[in-house]
Amino acid sequence: MDIATVVGVISAFGLVFVAIFMGGGIQIFINIPALMIVVGGTLGATMINYPLRDIFGVLNVVKKTLFSQNISVDEIINRFLGFSKKSRKEGILALEGEIKNVKDEFLKNGVQLFIDGFELQEIRDILETEVDLIGSRHQLGAEIFTTMATFFPALGMIGTLIGLVQMLQGLDDPSTIGPAMAVALLTTFYGSIMANIVCLPIAGKLRIRSKEEVLTKEMMIQGTISLSNGDNPMILEQKLLAFIPHSRRESVIH
Amino acid sequence: MDIATVVGVISAFGLVFVAIFMGGGIQIFINIPALMIVVGGTLGATMINYPLRDIFGVLNVVKKTLFSQNISVDEIINRFLGFSKKSRKEGILALEGEIKNVKDEFLKNGVQLFIDGFELQEIRDILETEVDLIGSRHQLGAEIFTTMATFFPALGMIGTLIGLVQMLQGLDDPSTIGPAMAVALLTTFYGSIMANIVCLPIAGKLRIRSKEEVLTKEMMIQGTISLSNGDNPMILEQKLLAFIPHSRRESVIH
Amino acid sequence: MDIATVVGVISAFGLVFVAIFMGGGIQIFINIPALMIVVGGTLGATMINYPLRDIFGVLNVVKKTLFSQNISVDEIINRFLGFSKKSRKEGILALEGEIKNVKDEFLKNGVQLFIDGFELQEIRDILETEVDLIGSRHQLGAEIFTTMATFFPALGMIGTLIGLVQMLQGLDDPSTIGPAMAVALLTTFYGSIMANIVCLPIAGKLRIRSKEEVLTKEMMIQGTISLSNGDNPMILEQKLLAFIPHSRRESVIH
Amino acid sequence: MDIATVVGVISAFGLVFVAIFMGGGIQIFINIPALMIVVGGTLGATMINYPLRDIFGVLNVVKKTLFSQNISVDEIINRFLGFSKKSRKEGILALEGEIKNVKDEFLKNGVQLFIDGFELQEIRDILETEVDLIGSRHQLGAEIFTTMATFFPALGMIGTLIGLVQMLQGLDDPSTIGPAMAVALLTTFYGSIMANIVCLPIAGKLRIRSKEEVLTKEMMIQGTISLSNGDNPMILEQKLLAFIPHSRRESVIH
Amino acid sequence: MDIATVVGVISAFGLVFVAIFMGGGIQIFINIPALMIVVGGTLGATMINYPLRDIFGVLNVVKKTLFSQNISVDEIINRFLGFSKKSRKEGILALEGEIKNVKDEFLKNGVQLFIDGFELQEIRDILETEVDLIGSRHQLGAEIFTTMATFFPALGMIGTLIGLVQMLQGLDDPSTIGPAMAVALLTTFYGSIMANIVCLPIAGKLRIRSKEEVLTKEMMIQGTISLSNGDNPMILEQKLLAFIPHSRRESVIH
Repeated sequence: MDIATVVGVISAFGLVFVAIFMGGGIQIFINIPALMIVVGGTLGATMINYPLRDIFGVLNVVKKTLFSQNISVDEIINRFLGFSKKSRKEGILALEGEIKNVKDEFLKNGVQLFIDGFELQEIRDILETEVDLIGSRHQLGAEIFTTMATFFPALGMIGTLIGLVQMLQGLDDPSTIGPAMAVALLTTFYGSIMANIVCLPIAGKLRIRSKEEVLTKEMMIQGTISLSNGDNPMILEQKLLAFIPHSRRESVIH
Repeated sequence: MDIATVVGVISAFGLVFVAIFMGGGIQIFINIPALMIVVGGTLGATMINYPLRDIFGVLNVVKKTLFSQNISVDEIINRFLGFSKKSRKEGILALEGEIKNVKDEFLKNGVQLFIDGFELQEIRDILETEVDLIGSRHQLGAEIFTTMATFFPALGMIGTLIGLVQMLQGLDDPSTIGPAMAVALLTTFYGSIMANIVCLPIAGKLRIRSKEEVLTKEMMIQGTISLSNGDNPMILEQKLLAFIPHSRRESVIH
Repeated sequence: MDIATVVGVISAFGLVFVAIFMGGGIQIFINIPALMIVVGGTLGATMINYPLRDIFGVLNVVKKTLFSQNISVDEIINRFLGFSKKSRKEGILALEGEIKNVKDEFLKNGVQLFIDGFELQEIRDILETEVDLIGSRHQLGAEIFTTMATFFPALGMIGTLIGLVQMLQGLDDPSTIGPAMAVALLTTFYGSIMANIVCLPIAGKLRIRSKEEVLTKEMMIQGTISLSNGDNPMILEQKLLAFIPHSRRESVIH
Repeated sequence: MDIATVVGVISAFGLVFVAIFMGGGIQIFINIPALMIVVGGTLGATMINYPLRDIFGVLNVVKKTLFSQNISVDEIINRFLGFSKKSRKEGILALEGEIKNVKDEFLKNGVQLFIDGFELQEIRDILETEVDLIGSRHQLGAEIFTTMATFFPALGMIGTLIGLVQMLQGLDDPSTIGPAMAVALLTTFYGSIMANIVCLPIAGKLRIRSKEEVLTKEMMIQGTISLSNGDNPMILEQKLLAFIPHSRRESVIH
Repeated sequence: MDIATVVGVISAFGLVFVAIFMGGGIQIFINIPALMIVVGGTLGATMINYPLRDIFGVLNVVKKTLFSQNISVDEIINRFLGFSKKSRKEGILALEGEIKNVKDEFLKNGVQLFIDGFELQEIRDILETEVDLIGSRHQLGAEIFTTMATFFPALGMIGTLIGLVQMLQGLDDPSTIGPAMAVALLTTFYGSIMANIVCLPIAGKLRIRSKEEVLTKEMMIQGTISLSNGDNPMILEQKLLAFIPHSRRESVIH
């Protein structure tokens, strides 16, 4: 979990709690039935919307994208330069030994296709189909959180409407209007917090991580195609360097 | 109907009802004219918007997508591996017997085109036209529910405006303000519930099922094209495996 | 005008009126200046937005799409099967006589291009340019109603703001607050009704009819290209059948 | 300035003013500080958003698109038919004399490229690059007004919040609440008027004019390419006619 | 920093402050806990959403896009005309000396690829990959500000809800309602200001600058491809001129 997320969570929730404490106590902001409507209702609507498998799968995606480290662009470039030189010197089959050390399944699979003698266009088709699917699986996580971010405020409003109707029907004692309305507003408050401080930022983070991963995979496709195309190592390096900013190229070129 | 939908419906509606009961009785939330405006008005607007045939068709789509089972990816891969081996050993016409056992109309039709001697590009054109149309027919169901999800809150607000105007015009007795306003808010409450707990989640589910089905069909197109292309079984398998995640490939490869 | 539209209009408006009558009389919902602001203001903004020619043209499009009948897919398939057989037996020029009976201008024009000896790619270019333009002209109708559906609630709010400002400035007599506010809310009510029960559903219907017509035209392009390509009638039929659902093919195939 | 715009402005603003007068005087709707916040704030935000050059440029675009007349489609078709016949009879260089009379810079430039011996693909590339840029420059005008239409209501709300805070802080004399709140609402009123009756309709008109112009330019590209392709005049005419509706072709064909 | 930005900031903030001062003092608009919730909460949510590296990177992008000057289109055209003439007279290698004076890294790199003997398609692939990435990096800045513009009003509403709940729970003394509600509204006020006068206009400016830069880079790609294609200088100039408006061409052509 990167430090920005930690600092972000602390600052966002911390400040809200501080502001609440400065204005009185936190107990007036805790209401179990209100929490039940907002959280339970949203989870319910989400479970109607998405297959259970996808909802549980999202936990894995979140864990994986927040904690795991992508293969670095430097390593990708170095790997492919190595492959390119090796296969020019010792022939394609010599790559068999090389890819055993590669952890990334996608890179391994791509180069294996090359070794197995698939043609350039076939390799491109197979790998691009796979990247499309990886991308859409990762998008799903972001999409589920975005959907929840639309259900949370909606359920918040539904809860507030329930509270208002109950309050308005029993308007006999004016002194109860204030507290009853305060309670009614709590569901809107919960919905707003959950949507804007929890769901939307997580959805955003997942989307960014997914983009980074797809970019990495596209570098690998380019590398495999360059290999298969028989590009010389200099051209191969140029083609891969195009994927990273000028400012970071210095540290990568040899 | 998958279990997530059942649990989702129970938790979403259940929690809302529990919250209502905890705050008093449910009878103050039932109002027939309010229900008539919101449900009737939305159905009316939907019937202006969509041809009757489409609206009734949606019931079929909903039933089909919620209950029926798609052909599994394993079966698709096995079928095409079988076709590929058979046609290489015994010739294309031997597939005539094979496809009799296939239930999926689309798969059957595609392979039949191949047997009938259509060229690769023709097969691709015909099947892709069909997938596009299947996709757009399935989208229609999701679209109708999404449209209803915009009409429901709108009609809810219209109902509330009617209630408010009537209340404000007869403001003589202050003691009636509360209950009259409570009733006015009920249409907004109904509209919100129908849009967010019923229509939007169902639209989402239909969209997901449609995506799954299109993906399945695209695997079949790839398989048919590979057959028609004369790919050997190993290449055909690689091309189809690209459609499923690495993590699930183990259980499929032979 | 299809029956869904009639039922829709009756149910949507009917229920709103019933609800109004149940809560009192309709006279408190009628206010000429409010109607002037909302309807006049929206028409004014629409006239700034769109050329007069387009606004009047929309009436034609609405009339045409709501009342006229598209050529049926069965007829299209039969026509092209007939053309294909005729031109194979008696030569291309024999089609001259055939197309005289065709009412659809687009179909006629396409086959005429084929008879006139245009090449396949030229026919495709000319017809696709035309379909694009038909599509965009039909979209315009839907777009104008969608635009009006954004102006109506905006003008409704402007009217309510005018009413509120006038009421608040003359707050001397508290007993007038209620009725004055009721009147102020009427513009929002009108805007909401016009946008959600009139404009949006009509825009939706126009969009659907336009899609159907474009699909029909694309079938005709495919047919003309197949003719021009010299496809045999069986292949031509397969290519056209791909445009209609499996479930409806039975009734079409011969 | 076409008549629809004039009628639109009069009806939209006229009706709002009439409604205001019927409810009292216009003086309670005039408030200089409120106007300053809404108009000044929006102009300020727009100036941060867009380079000064673009903002001033918009005035030209507005003037040009509202007042100037596009070259008519009839003229385009006639011009290209003339070019086609001339160049077939007297050779390409004879067109040099012809294009001197052409006012439209784009048409002139395209045919000049053909005369200068550029190849078909080069002509297409150069002209399409130019149309893209013309389109995006014209879009900019629409975009600036659309952006202003989002800033106006936002500044309106900011102004109302300022008024509300000031009113609530000085709540000692209840008799001042009404007028103070009326003043606070004026900024929202101004923002709403400016966004919905001024900016959005103008943005819409600019977008439509831009589309018309791009369509005209695409006809010219098609004509130039047809010329360069050596199409005979009949084919050239067919290709250009595809850009205009059947109903208007009668008056164009010779 | 261009003058429009300065004028915009002054006019937008200045007018808001003037309006505040005219209605009383500014001290009632300053509230530290409110500021903490809105600014701190938004920064927190943004830090969950984006990697720290991207958030700090945005400061560079903002600084660079607001202050640095793009290479002018005139210079690009002149450079490439020079390159074209030089390479035709003295051979490709003569360009080595020429590009030493070029400051723009992208232009330099492109021409270097040409000198190094890369093929036309390779040059196009490498440079277009790079432009795509430059574009998406620059978009990120605009995207972060747009995201903040959605968090700011959300946190503003959360703050207002906190204030309202606290006020409603302690409704004993009616005289405190006004000031308490004024304070509650301040967070909404802050959120609105930050979103509409700060974040959205900056996001818009970044987006425009990014478009300009991408256009410039696309001119350079066209130039490099023209060079590599061996176009004569006249054709090269035509192709580059297509990127700039007719009205500005006079000052560029020689």
